[in-house]
Amino acid sequence: MHMRAVMLGFGHVGRALARLLLRKAEVLRTDYDLTVTVTGLATHSHGLAINPEGLDLAGALALVERGERLDALHVGSPVTDTLSLIERCPADLVLEATWLNPHTGQPATDYVRAALQAGRHVVTANKGPVAFAYRELQALAAERGLGFFFESTVMDGAPVLSVGREGLLATTIQRIRGILNSTTNFILTRLEEGTPFAEALAEAQAIGVAEADPTTDLEGWDAAVKIVVLANVLMGADLRPADVERTGITGVTVADAQQAIQAGERIKLLCEAVRDGAQVRASVRPVRLPFADPLCQVSRTSSAVTFQTDTLHELTIVEGDTDPTTTAYGMLVDLINIARGRHRLA
Amino acid sequence: MHMRAVMLGFGHVGRALARLLLRKAEVLRTDYDLTVTVTGLATHSHGLAINPEGLDLAGALALVERGERLDALHVGSPVTDTLSLIERCPADLVLEATWLNPHTGQPATDYVRAALQAGRHVVTANKGPVAFAYRELQALAAERGLGFFFESTVMDGAPVLSVGREGLLATTIQRIRGILNSTTNFILTRLEEGTPFAEALAEAQAIGVAEADPTTDLEGWDAAVKIVVLANVLMGADLRPADVERTGITGVTVADAQQAIQAGERIKLLCEAVRDGAQVRASVRPVRLPFADPLCQVSRTSSAVTFQTDTLHELTIVEGDTDPTTTAYGMLVDLINIARGRHRLA
Repeated sequence: MHMRAVMLGFGHVGRALARLLLRKAEVLRTDYDLTVTVTGLATHSHGLAINPEGLDLAGALALVERGERLDALHVGSPVTDTLSLIERCPADLVLEATWLNPHTGQPATDYVRAALQAGRHVVTANKGPVAFAYRELQALAAERGLGFFFESTVMDGAPVLSVGREGLLATTIQRIRGILNSTTNFILTRLEEGTPFAEALAEAQAIGVAEADPTTDLEGWDAAVKIVVLANVLMGADLRPADVERTGITGVTVADAQQAIQAGERIKLLCEAVRDGAQVRASVRPVRLPFADPLCQVSRTSSAVTFQTDTLHELTIVEGDTDPTTTAYGMLVDLINIARGRHRLA
Repeated sequence: MHMRAVMLGFGHVGRALARLLLRKAEVLRTDYDLTVTVTGLATHSHGLAINPEGLDLAGALALVERGERLDALHVGSPVTDTLSLIERCPADLVLEATWLNPHTGQPATDYVRAALQAGRHVVTANKGPVAFAYRELQALAAERGLGFFFESTVMDGAPVLSVGREGLLATTIQRIRGILNSTTNFILTRLEEGTPFAEALAEAQAIGVAEADPTTDLEGWDAAVKIVVLANVLMGADLRPADVERTGITGVTVADAQQAIQAGERIKLLCEAVRDGAQVRASVRPVRLPFADPLCQVSRTSSAVTFQTDTLHELTIVEGDTDPTTTAYGMLVDLINIARGRHRLA
């Protein structure tokens, strides 16, 4: 099977995906009888390029890493914006990893909708389209027989959504609990170690975990968006991020974190979705968890999720330290699973 | 889709599966358009029964729980042994959960082979056929377009093998580490709490975790069989349980366990499979793990596995306390996944 893919976004994750596609080309062919060419590429500040015969991906990486534009790679009449590229570029699948506004889910939601309407499968690393428009986009995909997968939206490339799709069948998920935001988890770990909040935040920014504007993380917005993705996709809820009862970690001090440790507990920014009759309630808040809780030992930039179901008492998935490659890997797995039809008979 | 299933073994796991099939019948129909009838049932000491129209499963449960035989449910000429039942009973799939000899993998391996040769899909909860004959049985299944799934052989119904099949694609698993045996993990936890070995073992037997003859668990044989399943299926190895470097826990004392705790560590019976050039080496032995290791906090009858791969640095799956229903659930998930064709395009 041959897949023509369009890539939207060529930041850390997009470029890591491009490198994975090059590095894994041989394995894709051998193990899955799959070849992939990238026919279109939309970047934030290095221009757009289409080549129906396949872009030179190594060349695109080199250009962007030198700070140059992709214009030399483009074939055909000029293309000036991402939506036109989605519509015009011959492709079977769109790989979406653009910048996200966490309060609106845009522009990623519009990109995903346009891609599905143009008959392309979609793989996105963006939480926004799923948190703000899952039912609409999934219905659109199903109606057209297309795949709409987004493993990398929660816990990077760790198989969380595929476990829901392939492992937690014919079961009722009663509760989901998670440590889903790296910035806050890193800061909470550093507070335990005696580092004051402002310094811990600066460290998180220095290692590239926290954004220059860390508000989205610190106030629990990123975590809220992720628990909404899990609740809507795996528990049949229809929540929006604003529905989540949300408290951030800005009130937590070194003294709080160390007192918890003395008591055999750790403060964690816990995301929860709980079935309550026909409803699902979701919350994000700092809580003290006992050491024996599988979520308690998830430190620094690790993340984890626990499912409680009517057939498995407790299933926990923990992901160790992550980087852009682990996120990109989730997108690669989604691509393979769409290529082999895992979106059918879901 | 309609599936006719034969059940082999009607002990704790087999009966829990029968109850799940009854309890989940409506969900199977609604969510997967799937109906299941059990056309044959082979028990260890309550006889065998075939009914091509479908056995009364609730009736079979009631008979066996009253200590009676299944003879009244049987239709047609007498059937006296399990292999004849496999061959004669009209069925699409065999659900295998019989007693296992962990040193030979029999008689389960013969049952699985006979079922595949008779053109039946196979779901087994038995480690034996996988640890002793995976390549042969998988080749036989593939050749005939049949499914051969065995999620419940390792960590009960936790999605470990399906994560390998659906989530860890196009990756190289470099190392697998696991806490895979409940009896030894329960005893090690009780040693930490100050309970002497013999008493801890008696407790494990009293709650039904340990067998009357606990040697297989204590000497690491059960753990060795499980790490062989993981190594052979997920790392492409071709090991047998006797190839595993194996040390049991009979030498571990309360003093050892408590000294480890003082040092911020726990003694665990660690299963490991490590890629070493073209080889895979496997071991089972008690080791001290630091508290921060995700496997360290896995206590009592919980179990866990960590994968290190070239694309995900560290992925851990932890299963909380288990019972026969969690094992049976893994078999139900395998059945659904075979019904929807997940054994194709593996």
